[in-house]
Amino acid sequence: MTGTLRYSFLGPEGTFTEAALTQMPGADRAQRVPASSVLAALSMVDEGDAEGAVVPIENSVEGGVTATLDAVSVTHRLQITAETLVPITFVLASAQPMELSEVTSVATHSHAWAQVRSWAQNVLPRVQYIPAPSTAAGAHSLRTSAPMADAAICAPLVAEQLGLHVIASGIEDFPGAVTRFVLVTKPGQVPSMTGADKTTVTIPLPEDRAGALMELLEHFATRGVNICRIESRPTGSAMGDYFFSMDLEGHIHEPRVADALAGIHRVSPAVRFLGSYPRADRKAQHVRPEVSEEAFDAATQWVASLTRRT
Amino acid sequence: MTGTLRYSFLGPEGTFTEAALTQMPGADRAQRVPASSVLAALSMVDEGDAEGAVVPIENSVEGGVTATLDAVSVTHRLQITAETLVPITFVLASAQPMELSEVTSVATHSHAWAQVRSWAQNVLPRVQYIPAPSTAAGAHSLRTSAPMADAAICAPLVAEQLGLHVIASGIEDFPGAVTRFVLVTKPGQVPSMTGADKTTVTIPLPEDRAGALMELLEHFATRGVNICRIESRPTGSAMGDYFFSMDLEGHIHEPRVADALAGIHRVSPAVRFLGSYPRADRKAQHVRPEVSEEAFDAATQWVASLTRRT
Amino acid sequence: MTGTLRYSFLGPEGTFTEAALTQMPGADRAQRVPASSVLAALSMVDEGDAEGAVVPIENSVEGGVTATLDAVSVTHRLQITAETLVPITFVLASAQPMELSEVTSVATHSHAWAQVRSWAQNVLPRVQYIPAPSTAAGAHSLRTSAPMADAAICAPLVAEQLGLHVIASGIEDFPGAVTRFVLVTKPGQVPSMTGADKTTVTIPLPEDRAGALMELLEHFATRGVNICRIESRPTGSAMGDYFFSMDLEGHIHEPRVADALAGIHRVSPAVRFLGSYPRADRKAQHVRPEVSEEAFDAATQWVASLTRRT
Amino acid sequence: MTGTLRYSFLGPEGTFTEAALTQMPGADRAQRVPASSVLAALSMVDEGDAEGAVVPIENSVEGGVTATLDAVSVTHRLQITAETLVPITFVLASAQPMELSEVTSVATHSHAWAQVRSWAQNVLPRVQYIPAPSTAAGAHSLRTSAPMADAAICAPLVAEQLGLHVIASGIEDFPGAVTRFVLVTKPGQVPSMTGADKTTVTIPLPEDRAGALMELLEHFATRGVNICRIESRPTGSAMGDYFFSMDLEGHIHEPRVADALAGIHRVSPAVRFLGSYPRADRKAQHVRPEVSEEAFDAATQWVASLTRRT
Repeated sequence: MTGTLRYSFLGPEGTFTEAALTQMPGADRAQRVPASSVLAALSMVDEGDAEGAVVPIENSVEGGVTATLDAVSVTHRLQITAETLVPITFVLASAQPMELSEVTSVATHSHAWAQVRSWAQNVLPRVQYIPAPSTAAGAHSLRTSAPMADAAICAPLVAEQLGLHVIASGIEDFPGAVTRFVLVTKPGQVPSMTGADKTTVTIPLPEDRAGALMELLEHFATRGVNICRIESRPTGSAMGDYFFSMDLEGHIHEPRVADALAGIHRVSPAVRFLGSYPRADRKAQHVRPEVSEEAFDAATQWVASLTRRT
Repeated sequence: MTGTLRYSFLGPEGTFTEAALTQMPGADRAQRVPASSVLAALSMVDEGDAEGAVVPIENSVEGGVTATLDAVSVTHRLQITAETLVPITFVLASAQPMELSEVTSVATHSHAWAQVRSWAQNVLPRVQYIPAPSTAAGAHSLRTSAPMADAAICAPLVAEQLGLHVIASGIEDFPGAVTRFVLVTKPGQVPSMTGADKTTVTIPLPEDRAGALMELLEHFATRGVNICRIESRPTGSAMGDYFFSMDLEGHIHEPRVADALAGIHRVSPAVRFLGSYPRADRKAQHVRPEVSEEAFDAATQWVASLTRRT
Repeated sequence: MTGTLRYSFLGPEGTFTEAALTQMPGADRAQRVPASSVLAALSMVDEGDAEGAVVPIENSVEGGVTATLDAVSVTHRLQITAETLVPITFVLASAQPMELSEVTSVATHSHAWAQVRSWAQNVLPRVQYIPAPSTAAGAHSLRTSAPMADAAICAPLVAEQLGLHVIASGIEDFPGAVTRFVLVTKPGQVPSMTGADKTTVTIPLPEDRAGALMELLEHFATRGVNICRIESRPTGSAMGDYFFSMDLEGHIHEPRVADALAGIHRVSPAVRFLGSYPRADRKAQHVRPEVSEEAFDAATQWVASLTRRT
Repeated sequence: MTGTLRYSFLGPEGTFTEAALTQMPGADRAQRVPASSVLAALSMVDEGDAEGAVVPIENSVEGGVTATLDAVSVTHRLQITAETLVPITFVLASAQPMELSEVTSVATHSHAWAQVRSWAQNVLPRVQYIPAPSTAAGAHSLRTSAPMADAAICAPLVAEQLGLHVIASGIEDFPGAVTRFVLVTKPGQVPSMTGADKTTVTIPLPEDRAGALMELLEHFATRGVNICRIESRPTGSAMGDYFFSMDLEGHIHEPRVADALAGIHRVSPAVRFLGSYPRADRKAQHVRPEVSEEAFDAATQWVASLTRRT
């Protein structure tokens, strides 16, 4: 029954986030529900109005939302169960076929405009830029009786959804950029280990002094756990207190990850586990022999043998 | 001559960024020039169209833009010379005096909408939300012949600038939040040391493996340099290579900071110095005796005495 | 039955080592068996000719023997079960009562002579020094038909055992020195935890490069385990390969010690556990809250809760 | 003039220490002056009675004396200017030619006896062991009217010096062992850098707590300085305070060593430099690019460029 699975996403329809949603596990049988903000998308999961929410994490043209995700996860106890990467590529699209030289105004979100700026200066030097609430909103307006502009700069998906005419494509100044999106659900079973996994956590800084962060990281280094992403964030009103949002290489079912997080829990008991899930890039991880499951088992047995002596 | 100093900012007029600009050194004699994006604001400095640009750094309702700042700084060699904090507080404003109960639609940016969501659910449960390209854009539309909505949720500054009627104020769900903004100029003289300073750098990760970040941080820990902010960022198209954007406590004119950065330069020669400047919170820093200027001088003299022996 | 317990010690009778033996657990019912060397004393235990051996560890006037202990422990699988401290104080003793001014020659071990040298230069400037194989041997010779000298410099114990006349006491140049001795047995039950314990281990260096020792020590630092003693030793014929002999604060029955040693085992699987035993100085140890048994239990439960989710 | 150079050594004549002396720079023109103890040998330098002293450091059959060396260096301000390695190999020697089967007693130092114990048990199972104050003393007694035993176990050098008959050679249980000796002088010019050097220092532990040693070692790790030897020592009467005696790879004239020691001086200002000198094993050291002289120069220039900006 496709009707029973609902994934909310940062809307409106046609965003890069919706493109990401289509790549998520279960997407083929999920109903897609646009939300007006990341917070709203996440709240739908929290309140049972969706089984999953797809939200951007990094480098997004629609805005960096890790902070929101962190905040909500802490409040609402959600879990990341999948990630995916979407190439950030833009098209210039219009309602009816037209030439580049005919375009006098374009609507798009300011972040997208920033990313095609060099192209626009070269190709459309005299065009008028109309700020839109989102790239998708600019595109949608072209199909209304009050279009914001002659054309819109938007994701290929929305142009396709709306049957727009693509005047130019691949117009981003830095080709090859990708944005990372995650699928967020209520806490439940952790996805199986694949050998190419990530684990996301938030760790309050126990004490704000020189060396404090390094001492946290020692717990990962001594267990051979690589850090893929780290971001410090103020914990709220007081700008002096921090926590860290991190992605770790590895899965909570690996002893090296479990042991490192146990160490972190001792020094920062409010650590939050946000999920272990397969890496979008499928990059197999290199586990050094001294932090392999075998090494952990051998060490545990050796220590047990010492304390069991009679 | 006030006309000779121009500060660009993330516009339109009335944003929190413009509010930040008014707190920056030189603001009273600077002409304020709105830009359509952070990138555009920074480019104005790079191209000589402005002497400074004010852009948001953290936690902003107008979008996190550290990534843009980093990118531009690397490309264009800009320097941070000041920072300031602006309380993030919202008002509900209308063109003409009206009651809360009369408001049927509100225009604002989706990030702002997310931050007043609980208030809106309680006080305006049936209101229609109209996404605006920015909080200021929503407010400005109220003074046009085609207002986007009955009222706008925006910064107090823009309501004041436009002479709007403030229906409700302090409506944010999490009072006390602040956003950090910086003033960016062309590279030049580093602002004087005040005893409560910050230094911003970007550091490419020399090698992507477990422990690599910790080894970078050891350079700061052994010199007693506290890290106020850290964010890993992909270096571009390849999602596997990272650099770190960091704010350090202290000033490049302090030996502990200079020595730590010298150590970093050896392991990551592409390290970039983005500036030393007074902290917005004026929090005096605690320099441990073993990393004081005196300790550095004594150590230098001792080592010199060893190698000078005859 | 006192006859069933035999403790070997570095002889001959009257050494500081025998004085240490008298302070060891079980000493009141143990037969004391002098051995000609530390190696011989340890071998007696290994071969079942003694239940325990008392040997010096640090700072001894009879020679530093940690190296021997390490070697034997590796070969013979012995265990340290107690330690004790003996004040290193010397007497000048003769067979018959005599005055200081009458002493023309003194016999003692060269290490003891070195430790009373200033005193001897002041008080006996023209005395002849006769090297003896040990301080006790010099003293014993006074009771033979061929005394090595007029007087001997020796431990108070041997002077008392032989009924010698004490001409001067407390003649050491650095009063207050103590030497540490340990009781070594065959591997068996680890002595109970007292809250003021030490653990002795040997750890081969996995790789001889800058930072390798620091990486070992991180395992102790992250578990809040203090290091009381560390000595690097060449592993044998090749002077380039090292192992470390260490005393740690804490007992193998404490989770912080067990967890640190498990970490060490992963990177250096040939680590050897030589014993946990009460500290001679009874100094209660300060266990930081984040490495207490409670913190370990809480961390273990938290991690278990993550992986058990359904 | 050979008469003007005097090297004291741990005597009597024929010790391994004298064998080491013959390998030291200047030995061919130096008068060899035996001393009764390491302390006495060092004091001769301190008091101007010798220009150098040769003393054992590690693993010696004549006793470990690093502690003495440390103590004296702190008190008397001496400097290590050379090191050498001597193979520890023993001979069984007699005054007149005799067969193994004729030997009924052997004289030697207990440490030497310990090192030939397996050989003696196999070859001379019923021989009587006579403890001698030193291996050389046992040998010398063979040439007196009152020999201590039929034969002596001693260094090849003393057998040669005394024209003794060598009954058996290479009788040590662990062939290939070497002992390290150093040449100590008054403080003066540091020997030139050779590219294969060592530096010896003593470092008081600033604070006795978990992690304190690791924080010291970070200063070496961040500068790529390998530690060849480390020994903790009690500072004196109070058994709870420690300092570390260390040999580092590299020369004080290398920036990485000088910079690491400057870092150490800040946290432990009572650090003592005991000398930089060529390694006895001539093993060329591998200096990682990031701690090369070039990397230090580039880093210094970069930091200077930041602070010099106008």
